[in-house]
Amino acid sequence: MSQIAYKHPPQRTIARLSVYRRILAQDLEPSVDFIHSHQLASRAGVSAAQVRRDLMQVGCLGNPRRGYPVRQLLDCLITFLSGPECQKLVLVGVGNLGQALLSYFMGGRSHLSIVAAFDADAGKAGRVVHGCRCHPLQDLKKVLHDEQAFLAVLCIPAPGAQAAADTLVEAGVRGIVNFAGIPLSVPSDVYVENVDLTTSLEKVAFFAREKVQTASIA
Amino acid sequence: MSQIAYKHPPQRTIARLSVYRRILAQDLEPSVDFIHSHQLASRAGVSAAQVRRDLMQVGCLGNPRRGYPVRQLLDCLITFLSGPECQKLVLVGVGNLGQALLSYFMGGRSHLSIVAAFDADAGKAGRVVHGCRCHPLQDLKKVLHDEQAFLAVLCIPAPGAQAAADTLVEAGVRGIVNFAGIPLSVPSDVYVENVDLTTSLEKVAFFAREKVQTASIA
Repeated sequence: MSQIAYKHPPQRTIARLSVYRRILAQDLEPSVDFIHSHQLASRAGVSAAQVRRDLMQVGCLGNPRRGYPVRQLLDCLITFLSGPECQKLVLVGVGNLGQALLSYFMGGRSHLSIVAAFDADAGKAGRVVHGCRCHPLQDLKKVLHDEQAFLAVLCIPAPGAQAAADTLVEAGVRGIVNFAGIPLSVPSDVYVENVDLTTSLEKVAFFAREKVQTASIA
Repeated sequence: MSQIAYKHPPQRTIARLSVYRRILAQDLEPSVDFIHSHQLASRAGVSAAQVRRDLMQVGCLGNPRRGYPVRQLLDCLITFLSGPECQKLVLVGVGNLGQALLSYFMGGRSHLSIVAAFDADAGKAGRVVHGCRCHPLQDLKKVLHDEQAFLAVLCIPAPGAQAAADTLVEAGVRGIVNFAGIPLSVPSDVYVENVDLTTSLEKVAFFAREKVQTASIA
């Protein structure tokens, strides 16, 4: 594995590796022991050459005749994407979206685990939502320190999002999935992935209308 | 407004316009009547020049002294993004994620409205979830036709996603927000926006770990 490739794999590579990992873990019949790059490619919607380049980066070489050994490839991908140890996340904002994400993300992932949730509403503290204990927002630093968690899912409404992000960063968080729908200002040593559900919906509405209009003109 | 610009605005432009619309609709004090490009820019996390270029595309010109009239700018953005009429969506897959998206998206949007939900589990048919009626999956074509809905939110597990997408396309859907986590194969006159929550989480886990490692090496 090239050190340079390891140090700066682009975001799209990581996104593709994540999709390969999921296909291998969830979508294959248990009896499948080997998979060819073109088979993985067609399921992931990319080219076979792309798959081979990506898998070379994680240090997994296929056998030209039999393909890649599924179990070994999956282990390579998990270790590359998530490191050898389970990574801990916290979730901030146990509203509708937060509860949904808890129910979606809790369990089933040995390498990523939501260990605590937080809400400004003190009435939610002490409750267990989808198997995850809720804490008051003011306990954030203490719980993050106790749990040694460095990742957060932020799903509170836009007005309070930056303040919550500041607290997370102060508490040592180095990665945030941001569902707040506004950009966050964070130091350069913190990685933010923005997921903007409203914008996704509006993009589909816009481009679909365009396609209908183009079709009716043509 | 330039016809060429209108016909093919890139996806990133639409995403920024959607963020501007949300800031104007939700984040401003009601007393604010005018806003300067640099004020909108700092809230949206882009440059003032970018804001001016984007707003020129929607046909809204600011006043150099007073800025843009907020109410008029918001109307321009809504009409540009969503068209003059309300657009109807359906949601397919009323599991954990689907229910969360219903609760998140129902109400509050005059220009986009979820009019029906569908699930393969016949036991869910007839139920009303967060104000939205659930139908059995086999009624999809009929309901889409009756409602004249051309947009769909797809949030069923990967194995059934392509078949559901095929049915949606046959029924006339021209835009899909795809939460299934696998690529969909659709005709070129259908727009798909992929939202992959697991990949977002894994990207944050990967790049945050890299940042922690880089910091400990430096």
